Amino acid sequence: MTSFESKYSEYQSAFETVLDKFCGALNCKPSVLADSLKYSLTIGGKRLRPVLMYACGELLEVENKKLANYALALELIHTYSLIHDDLPDMDNDDFRRGKPANHKVFGTGNAILAGDGLLNTAYSILFNECFNGNEHISASKYLCDCAGIDGMIAGQSADLLHENDEIVTEEILNFIYENKTSKLILASTVVPAILKCGKYFSELKAFAINLGCLFQLTDDILDVEGSFEQLGKSTGKDKIEGKYTGIRLYGLDGSKLKADLLTDNCLKILEGIEGNTEFLKDLTYFVRQRIN
Amino acid sequence: MTSFESKYSEYQSAFETVLDKFCGALNCKPSVLADSLKYSLTIGGKRLRPVLMYACGELLEVENKKLANYALALELIHTYSLIHDDLPDMDNDDFRRGKPANHKVFGTGNAILAGDGLLNTAYSILFNECFNGNEHISASKYLCDCAGIDGMIAGQSADLLHENDEIVTEEILNFIYENKTSKLILASTVVPAILKCGKYFSELKAFAINLGCLFQLTDDILDVEGSFEQLGKSTGKDKIEGKYTGIRLYGLDGSKLKADLLTDNCLKILEGIEGNTEFLKDLTYFVRQRIN
Repeated sequence: MTSFESKYSEYQSAFETVLDKFCGALNCKPSVLADSLKYSLTIGGKRLRPVLMYACGELLEVENKKLANYALALELIHTYSLIHDDLPDMDNDDFRRGKPANHKVFGTGNAILAGDGLLNTAYSILFNECFNGNEHISASKYLCDCAGIDGMIAGQSADLLHENDEIVTEEILNFIYENKTSKLILASTVVPAILKCGKYFSELKAFAINLGCLFQLTDDILDVEGSFEQLGKSTGKDKIEGKYTGIRLYGLDGSKLKADLLTDNCLKILEGIEGNTEFLKDLTYFVRQRIN
Repeated sequence: MTSFESKYSEYQSAFETVLDKFCGALNCKPSVLADSLKYSLTIGGKRLRPVLMYACGELLEVENKKLANYALALELIHTYSLIHDDLPDMDNDDFRRGKPANHKVFGTGNAILAGDGLLNTAYSILFNECFNGNEHISASKYLCDCAGIDGMIAGQSADLLHENDEIVTEEILNFIYENKTSKLILASTVVPAILKCGKYFSELKAFAINLGCLFQLTDDILDVEGSFEQLGKSTGKDKIEGKYTGIRLYGLDGSKLKADLLTDNCLKILEGIEGNTEFLKDLTYFVRQRIN
């Protein structure tokens, strides 16, 4: 195990402990509601957003304990977005992380409610954090706006709107990437910065936007080159469904060059930060080279 | 116009001003997202929850201005719940307030996102309120939990789960009524109480739970006795879809007797509150006698 892998695993384990505790205490009624929430929260996943948040926390000397509920809220929001995104009238994916999507197990009605429930619970957790001081209100509000109608939801809406557009423009592609994918990654990096009086706010913001675009572009590449076994979800769907992807704008080879460029952007931005950014650099390479 | 109608209209107008301002400033992209939010927010509605909140505010001497963002957030949440509830895999209603439901105008995918967007925006508004002090954090958290997995979403989930149950029990019916319907009404009455150091918290809580059950029971009665013209939505659907209603438990006449009992409960609870509760009493009769 490389030191990156070991560190990733350490952050991931710290988060799984928080998530396990949350799921253990989740006993809302009817039980199908609790079960559907737990199902989607625990069918795996890289926990990229919590890991990134903890890593930025370590860089800025904000302890995990202070970030735990933000990481949890963010993963709840990420999970709700996947449940709703997988629905037949959205991306229509039957599989997620190698397992049947939430709506395939619990039905579409329950999946809609599970998503709503996760989103609402995320904010119930964050309102509790607000009692800890104004910087916590700012951090919660920032996270909320990243997930909202000028953030992730705007990206999802644009993604839906531009499906089957004949012409792909960089402007619209960037809008979709930066909102649909970068905004939650942005919450990961910026929450620790806000809790540390805005330290490295602009750098971590720029880093997150580039990393998010890189993540989405590699997602587009993997939809072409990856397999169900690697990804745990259907591949080759973007083309069939006329999705607005980097592949359509840059081609496959062009997308890889663009991914290298985004990687360079991330690394350059990290140069502007004092302190140990090794993990964030390695994480950038990890996102570039990921096969799932 | 009776003094009740005139007062109702006054509260309603005050709220419409707040809502108009919000809608006017709503310019998220893509425009279809903003349009779908505005569509559902402005196709009418009694604004019962904001009106009730302002009325409780007047009773407790909490000014409208202080409540405006709570009333707005609550109406956003109520509206999201209607959009998601009308979806084909939920209650499958093509009409709402006499107009085509959100998904009939914008498509199911956009309607899911519109609901998500309204819910998220409600909390973005409330995080801003949190800067005004701990009582605002408490009020926001309370409202959030009323809408959540131990509140409205639990009620929606139970409603879905028990569709087509052969036997209707009072225990399950109360669970559905109290969560699906009473919990948002509870937020209306309790937010002003929390902002006034918990004054009449228990009384206003008990009142709201009874009023919410009364509202839902009259909804069930109107599904039998009302018409599309009156209600602006389809009627007679509960029976066809095997919904878990008061009608099935008490019968139509029994439901009316139960509605009278709930009305009496509300009035009795209001007796325990000093100050002018005339409007709340009249509002109870209004809910009992409503034809839409």
